[in-house]
Amino acid sequence: MTVDGSILIGTRDVRRDAVFHAVEAASGAELPQPFAEANETDVAEACALAEEASGAFGALAPDTRAAFIETVAIAIEAIGDVLIETAMMETGLPRARLEGERGRTTGQLRMFAAEVREGGWLDAVIDTALPDRTPPRADLRRMNLPLGPVAVFGASNFPLAFSVAGGDTAAAFAAGCPVVVKGHPAHPGTGELVSRAIRSAVQSCGLPEGVFSYLPGSSNALGGALVADPRIKAVGFTGSRGGGLALVEIARRRPEPIPVYAEMSSINPVVLMPAALAARAEALGTAFVGSLTMGAGQFCTNPGLVIALDGPALDRFIATASAALAAAPPPVMLTPGIHAAFTAGVAALDSNAAAKRVGAGALFETTAAQFIADRSLGHEVFGVSSLVVRCTDLDEVAQVIADLEGQLTATLQLDAEDVADAAPILALLQAKVGRVLANGWPTGVEVTHAMVHGGPYPATSDGRTTSVGTLAMIRFLRPVCFQDMPDVLLPPALQAANPLRLPRRVNGVREAA
Amino acid sequence: MTVDGSILIGTRDVRRDAVFHAVEAASGAELPQPFAEANETDVAEACALAEEASGAFGALAPDTRAAFIETVAIAIEAIGDVLIETAMMETGLPRARLEGERGRTTGQLRMFAAEVREGGWLDAVIDTALPDRTPPRADLRRMNLPLGPVAVFGASNFPLAFSVAGGDTAAAFAAGCPVVVKGHPAHPGTGELVSRAIRSAVQSCGLPEGVFSYLPGSSNALGGALVADPRIKAVGFTGSRGGGLALVEIARRRPEPIPVYAEMSSINPVVLMPAALAARAEALGTAFVGSLTMGAGQFCTNPGLVIALDGPALDRFIATASAALAAAPPPVMLTPGIHAAFTAGVAALDSNAAAKRVGAGALFETTAAQFIADRSLGHEVFGVSSLVVRCTDLDEVAQVIADLEGQLTATLQLDAEDVADAAPILALLQAKVGRVLANGWPTGVEVTHAMVHGGPYPATSDGRTTSVGTLAMIRFLRPVCFQDMPDVLLPPALQAANPLRLPRRVNGVREAA
Repeated sequence: MTVDGSILIGTRDVRRDAVFHAVEAASGAELPQPFAEANETDVAEACALAEEASGAFGALAPDTRAAFIETVAIAIEAIGDVLIETAMMETGLPRARLEGERGRTTGQLRMFAAEVREGGWLDAVIDTALPDRTPPRADLRRMNLPLGPVAVFGASNFPLAFSVAGGDTAAAFAAGCPVVVKGHPAHPGTGELVSRAIRSAVQSCGLPEGVFSYLPGSSNALGGALVADPRIKAVGFTGSRGGGLALVEIARRRPEPIPVYAEMSSINPVVLMPAALAARAEALGTAFVGSLTMGAGQFCTNPGLVIALDGPALDRFIATASAALAAAPPPVMLTPGIHAAFTAGVAALDSNAAAKRVGAGALFETTAAQFIADRSLGHEVFGVSSLVVRCTDLDEVAQVIADLEGQLTATLQLDAEDVADAAPILALLQAKVGRVLANGWPTGVEVTHAMVHGGPYPATSDGRTTSVGTLAMIRFLRPVCFQDMPDVLLPPALQAANPLRLPRRVNGVREAA
Repeated sequence: MTVDGSILIGTRDVRRDAVFHAVEAASGAELPQPFAEANETDVAEACALAEEASGAFGALAPDTRAAFIETVAIAIEAIGDVLIETAMMETGLPRARLEGERGRTTGQLRMFAAEVREGGWLDAVIDTALPDRTPPRADLRRMNLPLGPVAVFGASNFPLAFSVAGGDTAAAFAAGCPVVVKGHPAHPGTGELVSRAIRSAVQSCGLPEGVFSYLPGSSNALGGALVADPRIKAVGFTGSRGGGLALVEIARRRPEPIPVYAEMSSINPVVLMPAALAARAEALGTAFVGSLTMGAGQFCTNPGLVIALDGPALDRFIATASAALAAAPPPVMLTPGIHAAFTAGVAALDSNAAAKRVGAGALFETTAAQFIADRSLGHEVFGVSSLVVRCTDLDEVAQVIADLEGQLTATLQLDAEDVADAAPILALLQAKVGRVLANGWPTGVEVTHAMVHGGPYPATSDGRTTSVGTLAMIRFLRPVCFQDMPDVLLPPALQAANPLRLPRRVNGVREAA
């Protein structure tokens, strides 16, 4: 499989005169391969095909759709090492990380396939008729149906697991929605390889070509046109707050507004409870820097804020962390844009009298009073940068937490003696986040049933959802009720004979599958 | 229990110099009782109390919260006949309808109480740790938590079942959210009586007073201030499209945008399939008018559009419907505003050359081509008004459906010989609506597990939800994941011993309760 810079619209390869180039992350040099810049005609054609495919794809039997998703995983594996090499060049991420991410990507697809087969997501609910009641009750049957074509915007920091065939695409396919991907310009070769794999799966499974299209491009206008297309019914996005909010605004202004699931920004507060800090200051400092520097700090769940009681134990934590940070290898950042934003964010902290730099790395400290007084101290600096907030007592810890915006995660480091004090802190934290951890570090997001990678605004644009884990499917579904519908016209999930052998709820009682 | 025109803020009765009066629906005369107009101070105080109550109310054991909701139902029944008499006077709705609606309201509360106890809504999901995996997997536990204080805007057309203690309030209480009601000015006495009943339940159950407050008022500014208050985390609304969209806009402009669940408008298309129409034209015409005139046409699910093939059978349907409509008693409308909007809507159809009035009532007909060419023919006229679209063939029927906006319901009238032709029509309809009926009429919304009273925009502002039935709870919940949290700090729903005896999903397997 080779990269030629095409736009993939269903089964067609499209070239355009307008092109863009990717940049080698390690050197900053422009790479030779030109990539076609998709335009509004391409958007319209991809969306028209997606709409055409929507009914048939959405009505596939769970087994058939699951088999397609598994075929995508196999096709990605079949790309071979050129996928890893291309991604290494375009992103600067090391081989081991990308090989792991490929495994995560295909594992994620297979987990969604299994979830599609399990069928609980259909939420099949039946209330049978009560003809003898006054007034009689009709037969009512409800299930989830797919929303329709979904636009997916990949993230630069996960060129495989959160890009073309990443979590959003897997969740949309699982829900029965065709996908049009706006390719990320930082890894267009990687994106094209994965797109060709998805296309091959669409073809080998005999599905309508509109189930998947790929629109590479470097302009904001391309993404805007995609979200504005009336055939698109939902949007998945992972990236900056500015980018996410721009798409939310475009979606809102449509004649028919649509949901945008944007995962945008988070500083992932870590609270060091007193007994844990006293007992493990050095170990915590080392482990903290391990999480902070992972992936050159370019994770949505990077620990950008540490909250703890002032005192000698916190001094020890900071000293250890500062030394560990100085010893860490210099990070290679994903894109020149991310590097520039990181430099600007660190410079803003350096020029802020309320934040004091600790040691050589971008580790800063401040006080609770200063943090609460200056909202800018709570802004995300994407990269290896973090801020320690010194508090005088647990009340100040609580005030700092109460002052935070919505976050993806929060972490409690606590020992047994901290449990009683931690309970009210936990209550505050869980109201602000999608995931709260004890004695771990927020980087590393497990793809599983119980995961929530989401959280209140502005961590995401819709805090009622997750973008990682099987629950992510529900973002692309809506309930529909069928009243007194002849059995032959009902979707199989709701038919009397339960031909799909689904777990269903009948007259309030949950039945085994 | 007597009405004195107070604002109810927690346990306090508040009066204001600014007052408004309700209007007797039958006569249009102003009623003597002055009602305090709540102001921004009242909004702030009610929301502060709601926020204070939020943690404790949200953390109640399911049994305790269910008992509170049942106590609300009992307290509403204890108001006695003054509730019915007050509602009759303020709304013009007849006694039997209001007595039925009271039963629906208390039944709805009891159904939510039972649902709270059942516990499936908590969606407790556990993925246990895999310490021997490389890398090890943490213990992950997810459940739904309440969003926080909810603002509820009652509807004028259901002074009990969709007002102060109606579906939105019941769903929010069930989810664990305190409620601040913006009282509808068309039935303030009814609203105050029900509010006092809820307050008595809050007190007798020993709950924090902020669980419920009631803000009567006639100004849009009051509702706007309530939605803008930073302590409000979600909004439930039933009413006009203009009103709903105004609240959506206010919620969007907040520093922290919040979800608004607005149920706004629908013309509820009814498709008469050819064999059914030929066999039952007269019966369908009579039954159609029964649904159309129910509640003076003031139901969200009123059948405002009929789509059928042109021909003698449709002529017979129209003739029967027109005669039945002429014989129907003159409707008493809920408010002068609704009456004025109805008159204006009918006048617009009368002055539209594309719509022809049939008989004496507000029954109109047009052709498919004219309907598709003129979007204004698809606008809701709230009241006893409907439009029949004559189509030349089933392709035109499909085109008319494809041209429709999102709707709450769609109805198919079909006989056995229609089934094959109905399948593609049904596929089109189900993509547009929250509920699709066969051989029934859309008025009459059953409160049950399988009901969906929702639908794509602009039927509602969020087509992924319902405002009737137990599924309505999920509007006020969001998932939170706990990672490696000590058992003692976990909410009971996720603790190892499953003390609530909940149905849970563990490592992908759904366990019995």
